[in-house]
Amino acid sequence: MIDVYIVGIGQTNAGEHWDRSLRDLGVDAMLAALQDAGVGQVETLYVGNMLAGELVAQAQLGALLADWSGLGCIEAIRAEAADASGAAALRMGYLAVASGASDLVLACGVEKTTDADSESVDQAWSSGMDGEYETSQGLSMPAVGGLLMRRYMHEHGVGREAFAPFAVNAHANGANNPYAMFQRPISIEAYAHSGMVADPVGMFDVAPLCDGAAAVVLCAADRARELAAKPVRVRASAVATDRVALHSRTDPLSLQAAHLSALKAYAQAGVGPHDIDLFELHDSFSVMAALSLEACGFAERGHGTDLGLDGEIGLQGRIPISTMGGLKARGHPLGATGIYQVVELAQQLRGEAGANQLDCRLGMAQSLAGSGATAITHILEA
Amino acid sequence: MIDVYIVGIGQTNAGEHWDRSLRDLGVDAMLAALQDAGVGQVETLYVGNMLAGELVAQAQLGALLADWSGLGCIEAIRAEAADASGAAALRMGYLAVASGASDLVLACGVEKTTDADSESVDQAWSSGMDGEYETSQGLSMPAVGGLLMRRYMHEHGVGREAFAPFAVNAHANGANNPYAMFQRPISIEAYAHSGMVADPVGMFDVAPLCDGAAAVVLCAADRARELAAKPVRVRASAVATDRVALHSRTDPLSLQAAHLSALKAYAQAGVGPHDIDLFELHDSFSVMAALSLEACGFAERGHGTDLGLDGEIGLQGRIPISTMGGLKARGHPLGATGIYQVVELAQQLRGEAGANQLDCRLGMAQSLAGSGATAITHILEA
Repeated sequence: MIDVYIVGIGQTNAGEHWDRSLRDLGVDAMLAALQDAGVGQVETLYVGNMLAGELVAQAQLGALLADWSGLGCIEAIRAEAADASGAAALRMGYLAVASGASDLVLACGVEKTTDADSESVDQAWSSGMDGEYETSQGLSMPAVGGLLMRRYMHEHGVGREAFAPFAVNAHANGANNPYAMFQRPISIEAYAHSGMVADPVGMFDVAPLCDGAAAVVLCAADRARELAAKPVRVRASAVATDRVALHSRTDPLSLQAAHLSALKAYAQAGVGPHDIDLFELHDSFSVMAALSLEACGFAERGHGTDLGLDGEIGLQGRIPISTMGGLKARGHPLGATGIYQVVELAQQLRGEAGANQLDCRLGMAQSLAGSGATAITHILEA
Repeated sequence: MIDVYIVGIGQTNAGEHWDRSLRDLGVDAMLAALQDAGVGQVETLYVGNMLAGELVAQAQLGALLADWSGLGCIEAIRAEAADASGAAALRMGYLAVASGASDLVLACGVEKTTDADSESVDQAWSSGMDGEYETSQGLSMPAVGGLLMRRYMHEHGVGREAFAPFAVNAHANGANNPYAMFQRPISIEAYAHSGMVADPVGMFDVAPLCDGAAAVVLCAADRARELAAKPVRVRASAVATDRVALHSRTDPLSLQAAHLSALKAYAQAGVGPHDIDLFELHDSFSVMAALSLEACGFAERGHGTDLGLDGEIGLQGRIPISTMGGLKARGHPLGATGIYQVVELAQQLRGEAGANQLDCRLGMAQSLAGSGATAITHILEA
């Protein structure tokens, strides 16, 4: 397989874009990534998106964004894996370059939620769960978050306050990210007194759905050295899945897909969790941050929250997470999120993370779909 | 790039499956393909689907079908390119094998339309067009078919009857396909007297939307020889796009994406249209059959209908098309169609096409999205 590099990154603000449509956001991010890479054309475009069909009645986003960006008649396809769709598009782009089929590829994640009412958005978000056995019974994504968090508290004997550091850390980091939806730190007290969304999931335990788009330019090693001052190498790209319905899993507190895709990624890169300098994880709920840390080998089962309480997830900690705000503070534009994570990882590895800059060489991004039935892991190297 | 082979095929009947849900259909086709290949497990699954989110509120079909088929925690992602989604999933599978990332891959196309009312299905089908500039103005897919057919008749000076051979040929071939939705031949008189859907598009000019699933097992050359008595080689896999909105195209009667993806495919395979023994084209409307033949070099501009009138598209003709019924008689289960085309092509190349069997070595399948903004072309060899 041909080595794959990221040579360009671009993103729009995550948030509410009342004056931009889905195609506008996608094109903005794509053109920013192309400009960053210093190229005017690519051969292939993969678009990650979860809900354009449901919310704005638009399919065939591949051709649409190729068309509206002026890239012309290039290969273009949409990839979907619920809120891991952005990472799925990156996976497709990786395969296109690794196979030799394409030399230059754009992977773009885009989502537009503010064109639909919030009830429709919440319902559509839940389509990442099992429609016949979960959603049809009235289960929603926040309710799943509540079930998992309650179970975690019960089984591991921790209180709600054990999850506060995930929210506090994300918002502290988001404060220094000009693209983040929320750029203000929050206190532990604010977390403790926040309103309930789905008990015990409070307002600061769930990532806000929003609009946004992010894009990366991928290419093979030889072109990477020509194009980028600081090419970022994709050392691993791995996907795994799990039972979709929570009730079908032997152990709901074990994210099997996250675990298996991380193992595959570690094997591809020839590294282990101790080699990873930062981890952009899928904190759609604060309990998912704890479970992701455990699934990927950064904490023992039941000790994911300890990493937060011990200050190990902060910028100075042992395994910094959500370094640009995570889903929680940057915002969670569903099908765009997987690309945002990788763009932020690339910012860190290129030394462009501003006030949040880490001393780092190897980073991992992991995107989850729904309650974790699809997990897509990428390891990047400076 | 590693050579890619098809070593297993499977399909359900195309039609109205009132007693099977989307996941049932997908699993049926996948297990049939695995059984045909003689394998119990694959490493990767790509699912082509257009409308599961819109019609049955289900995203993340990759994980869902991996789960329900018993394939476990394998890599799984959905690909979408409107009604070319099945072919998009095949393209993904091709890249996974060609890159060396996976040795054994399932590509499955699946669609379930009968769980929604027909108005919702028609509206959702139209999401393959430009939502902001076409659908929002009331344009529907049948209306686009009508505009293109009227323009063809006007510009090339032919009457409605010039399109009759496409419908007659498809239904004649569908009569011998036990998986086809319609298994009765029709006469030229029946075509002439059929009711109008969107003048001049009559009932026999438009493919019926329906339920269905089809799947293929892909693998690399070395495994192919072990596994299959008659492995079918994927000689080319190519995607191109065009402006999505019809009004943005310089020449609406020229299918640019179809033309460019065919050119790419010919170049990859080192062949030309004269080498192709049969062509499974995207006859969503009979005018699309004529335009596809022209775009891919089988007829000069304005002479696609001549091939039908001269008997050249039949099983004994120069370039047989829709040899198992095409979209018109087999049925058009949207996101599944691209895989049905390739399954039927493989049936021909393996000598398993029954009464419709051709003497053939090289075949081409081309799947189009919406009014042709995405075109995905595969060339297969016995």
